[in-house]
Amino acid sequence: MKAYVIQGGFGLEHVVQIDRPIPEPGPGQALVRLRAVSLNSRDIGVIEGFYDPAHTEGLTPVSDSVGEIVALGEGATRFKIGDRVSAIFAQSWIEGEPTQANWTSTLGSPLDGLLAEYAVLPEAGLVRVPDYLTDAEAATLPCAAVTAWHAVVEEGQVRAGDTVVVQGTGGVSLFALQFAKLHGARVIVTSGSEEKLGRALALGADIGINYNKNADWDQAVLAHTQGLGADHIVDVGGAATLNRSVSALKVGGRISVIGLLSGAAVADFAIVPAILKKARLQAINVGSRAMFESMNRAIALHGLRPAVDSVFPFEQAVDALRRLKAGAHFGKICIAC
Amino acid sequence: MKAYVIQGGFGLEHVVQIDRPIPEPGPGQALVRLRAVSLNSRDIGVIEGFYDPAHTEGLTPVSDSVGEIVALGEGATRFKIGDRVSAIFAQSWIEGEPTQANWTSTLGSPLDGLLAEYAVLPEAGLVRVPDYLTDAEAATLPCAAVTAWHAVVEEGQVRAGDTVVVQGTGGVSLFALQFAKLHGARVIVTSGSEEKLGRALALGADIGINYNKNADWDQAVLAHTQGLGADHIVDVGGAATLNRSVSALKVGGRISVIGLLSGAAVADFAIVPAILKKARLQAINVGSRAMFESMNRAIALHGLRPAVDSVFPFEQAVDALRRLKAGAHFGKICIAC
Amino acid sequence: MKAYVIQGGFGLEHVVQIDRPIPEPGPGQALVRLRAVSLNSRDIGVIEGFYDPAHTEGLTPVSDSVGEIVALGEGATRFKIGDRVSAIFAQSWIEGEPTQANWTSTLGSPLDGLLAEYAVLPEAGLVRVPDYLTDAEAATLPCAAVTAWHAVVEEGQVRAGDTVVVQGTGGVSLFALQFAKLHGARVIVTSGSEEKLGRALALGADIGINYNKNADWDQAVLAHTQGLGADHIVDVGGAATLNRSVSALKVGGRISVIGLLSGAAVADFAIVPAILKKARLQAINVGSRAMFESMNRAIALHGLRPAVDSVFPFEQAVDALRRLKAGAHFGKICIAC
Amino acid sequence: MKAYVIQGGFGLEHVVQIDRPIPEPGPGQALVRLRAVSLNSRDIGVIEGFYDPAHTEGLTPVSDSVGEIVALGEGATRFKIGDRVSAIFAQSWIEGEPTQANWTSTLGSPLDGLLAEYAVLPEAGLVRVPDYLTDAEAATLPCAAVTAWHAVVEEGQVRAGDTVVVQGTGGVSLFALQFAKLHGARVIVTSGSEEKLGRALALGADIGINYNKNADWDQAVLAHTQGLGADHIVDVGGAATLNRSVSALKVGGRISVIGLLSGAAVADFAIVPAILKKARLQAINVGSRAMFESMNRAIALHGLRPAVDSVFPFEQAVDALRRLKAGAHFGKICIAC
Repeated sequence: MKAYVIQGGFGLEHVVQIDRPIPEPGPGQALVRLRAVSLNSRDIGVIEGFYDPAHTEGLTPVSDSVGEIVALGEGATRFKIGDRVSAIFAQSWIEGEPTQANWTSTLGSPLDGLLAEYAVLPEAGLVRVPDYLTDAEAATLPCAAVTAWHAVVEEGQVRAGDTVVVQGTGGVSLFALQFAKLHGARVIVTSGSEEKLGRALALGADIGINYNKNADWDQAVLAHTQGLGADHIVDVGGAATLNRSVSALKVGGRISVIGLLSGAAVADFAIVPAILKKARLQAINVGSRAMFESMNRAIALHGLRPAVDSVFPFEQAVDALRRLKAGAHFGKICIAC
Repeated sequence: MKAYVIQGGFGLEHVVQIDRPIPEPGPGQALVRLRAVSLNSRDIGVIEGFYDPAHTEGLTPVSDSVGEIVALGEGATRFKIGDRVSAIFAQSWIEGEPTQANWTSTLGSPLDGLLAEYAVLPEAGLVRVPDYLTDAEAATLPCAAVTAWHAVVEEGQVRAGDTVVVQGTGGVSLFALQFAKLHGARVIVTSGSEEKLGRALALGADIGINYNKNADWDQAVLAHTQGLGADHIVDVGGAATLNRSVSALKVGGRISVIGLLSGAAVADFAIVPAILKKARLQAINVGSRAMFESMNRAIALHGLRPAVDSVFPFEQAVDALRRLKAGAHFGKICIAC
Repeated sequence: MKAYVIQGGFGLEHVVQIDRPIPEPGPGQALVRLRAVSLNSRDIGVIEGFYDPAHTEGLTPVSDSVGEIVALGEGATRFKIGDRVSAIFAQSWIEGEPTQANWTSTLGSPLDGLLAEYAVLPEAGLVRVPDYLTDAEAATLPCAAVTAWHAVVEEGQVRAGDTVVVQGTGGVSLFALQFAKLHGARVIVTSGSEEKLGRALALGADIGINYNKNADWDQAVLAHTQGLGADHIVDVGGAATLNRSVSALKVGGRISVIGLLSGAAVADFAIVPAILKKARLQAINVGSRAMFESMNRAIALHGLRPAVDSVFPFEQAVDALRRLKAGAHFGKICIAC
Repeated sequence: MKAYVIQGGFGLEHVVQIDRPIPEPGPGQALVRLRAVSLNSRDIGVIEGFYDPAHTEGLTPVSDSVGEIVALGEGATRFKIGDRVSAIFAQSWIEGEPTQANWTSTLGSPLDGLLAEYAVLPEAGLVRVPDYLTDAEAATLPCAAVTAWHAVVEEGQVRAGDTVVVQGTGGVSLFALQFAKLHGARVIVTSGSEEKLGRALALGADIGINYNKNADWDQAVLAHTQGLGADHIVDVGGAATLNRSVSALKVGGRISVIGLLSGAAVADFAIVPAILKKARLQAINVGSRAMFESMNRAIALHGLRPAVDSVFPFEQAVDALRRLKAGAHFGKICIAC
């Protein structure tokens, strides 16, 4: 079987295709013929050596996938041959709150990822995905969608009438937009591109704010909420956005702290405004299998379609990673396996 | 001004129109020119002497209304002349959990109700209503809609993908249907009438179950949920429905206990099945001003239209009460003031 | 090894000791040398044929135990030889909300129970118990203590200053008393025996109400709470107590619906008072492994000692069951294995 | 009557005593003969012109007090003459979540504070305080104790067995220590003084960490929690402590963000560690009247005694403020009125 590994150093040029035997499922495991993967900015971080550099050599990158079960190990009973499944990001996080130990079970680092034709995974770490989704669409769910569901629904408890702000048009933000709309919220999306704002509005957003035209997007949010501020802000910008998120928040509001897309890992966080807002900052790191299943039920009921930016053939996997790094995409970048 | 009072005994024949001076607002109060009221089964109960018979003589019935502020007492600043407002059911329940004392402040018993041309009310007990609603539509909100919001959203925390069962097509049930749909749930409605089921489906329900054709509606709910049961059941039937609601519930599910439309006030409640379901039975008695305002925000965002059965002229108020008692209506029965 | 089974019919006289080979642990399993069990009224129900009569023949009764791990199957890594553990009641309920499937994994019916010298159990269904507890004390935890923790802490969220009512002095009630005290609550205990009330006060209860002297114990609770009612009531009486529990509750209060010790399985439940109290009735059926572990942490921190009524030798197991049935005990009845 | 005002500039030297007429209570108001006040670091901030400098001239400082009702305005019915009461910090925050408007109703800026012999206050902004407390003890409650209750109980939902870290031995931290103990938690306190650690242990803390001897107090917390981290951290240090608080936290834990005692208002907040902890940072700004009343009930039940550092006579109010600024106190600094 074909698989990609990180070999001989860090960076996209060290992502190379190799050939290795198809693995066999042990007790409680399933062999999955992968059909598609989707990319997350974390994958770039792993490839560039920012995550766990001492254990990156030889690692297969990419955590998110969909595939078909082609063989089952002894005692594996949750699925049958032919079921279409996705692997959960933290393989040991089944339900409830996460533990430190769960982070040692994440795919794509430290565990081998899924940019390959086949993988063996514990059946407990797999979930069925809705039938009507294409393979590429289904492959977008494990990190981006589960993170957004965790933020907006599980911790955010967004409800009808709320105003929710999502930053940009990356994978998490577009899922957050869609899940907030499913719960009857009003969604404000920020972006630096008129074209992307237009596409976000087409996906259901109520209001778009172009931060290239209006850097004070927090003031624009206040203006759109009669000065009260948003009920919930999905912050993916980290250092570059956190204080403005507090500024745009209503008193008693909630911020999901998800990413650090703006690059800097350390925010100059102004504490007094946060106190005067009684702000809740809830950091989010993907989610459990139970959240994934609960999300799938909602997705299937509404026939929701994930925003797929593009699907690359398996041979062009590195081009797909390059497109992600370039940052011009809208929605998720996928690779057929 | 004209007003109705309960006079000389109990029963609809003792609801009579009288003439009395227009009252004047004291400090912190508002004079409201009432435009419409809506009826609840509780109003019949009061008129028939079941609520507080010792204090019913001379009482103006009916709690739910909409009107226009025409005068303000000293220090009243929450509203301005011309604002269209509804009075909250329990005048002293502003936010948080209710207290015993709040029940002494409910309109239509023990406090005078609003089946009249004018009423003086504390400004703290009023809320603005969405502009686009007709007077009749706005008058349906204070009890039926707030009860449904409290049940489905505040306590129920219904979320996208949930299955919610609403019983019948009375006011609370139809609002519960609409609020559950706003939050992305799947709604199953039960009714004894095919015509009413058709109208409920037109309002957004996903599935209708005719309990005249299929008395085991709980089994039908199980069949529609792969045997798992519903996440949430809005029980308005009381004694006649409670055990079937438990039977139709998923393990870990919630039942909103709202009414006793089936007549009997004492249910033969089977405890063991409730324990095996880890059922939560949450009794609901309307809601606070904060819930009302939160609900109005959601209603306005979605342009939701309450289901109005009929609007009677003020002179035919007793006919409206009769129609309610007959029980053939769909949605709320209103009276123009 | 010795073990008890239900043989040749229903009733205590059909609980007989047999001899059978010590079982061997399979993959992921542990062999436990049982040291003590504790009894629950459910055990009597199983023995008398009320639970699942078609599958009672040959069943080993009793769900709650403590023992020492003496052998581990392949791949079992959660424990080491010599660890002292208790088996969780529903072997598959690890965390989060229960499912219908969890009820098929309960010990003592339908699965074999632990009134035996040895048992093989999946390692996932075991928890370590605090070192300082005697075997008998540790054996009391799986059902009675976890049920009380689930009721008072997980669902009840009892906090300092709350008034909590516990009914009687059975195992669940005494644990509920102790857990409510750990969280700073005031505890009122009801009992028909002055002697038992005295012992409950010695365990930390603040107030005792003798319902043989004062059948209107709900009125006494109201008197002790300035007419407001209790914040939380742990109802173990079922049909005989539910309406009085509602009567003794504060507006917005919570009732844990746990048992049906009064015999009748169907309560005449008065709905209107429950609505006027905005009562929450939360049915409870033991709890998850995560709850058990969380509880153990609290127990160990406080050196809390379970109330043990008596410890019978293994040969007198049937006498222990008889004592339970007689109902004169205070705290848990245990058997050394 | 005597009162202090800020006059002629900023700084402690501009806090001067004046004489002014005793005010009269209007409708719904009470005249309170103040008996004691307690100081908060915010009072220093107001006096030094950091809060609302344009409106500080002539302002009476200090928000927290206790006093006796000596006269009631028309329609004031919540209290009677002679009741001992404290004024809530944000006079309009009665219950539920705060609003932007509530912050315009805080005592000691922008509203006149209570460093005076008499004050007129709306009856809605007063709460009864437990009888057994001295005046100085009761005066410590409105900010420090309510903040700690809000953090530990309302938002923190601390439960028995939890490990709670409190930073330092200021007013909020000591109340947080006491409230966490009331709920059965284990409390770790940090301080730079062995003597203060000793006093905190005497108040009930389980473990003291001297950050002057061990700057890596976060590592010490991890060591005391088997590497898991604390369940809850009450962060009063702001910029100087936030990242270490994240480091000392368990996965899924909560941090109450309360103060900025370390001086800097902007923290260098490391986002990635917060995400890997799934940390919740909940900013807290005192609390509502409902929280105050709920807290008082718990305090009274347990006869809890606030830690009073010292009580200054009214004439030495500025010395009291100086002692606060010097920072060598343990517990609350009070002034008799």
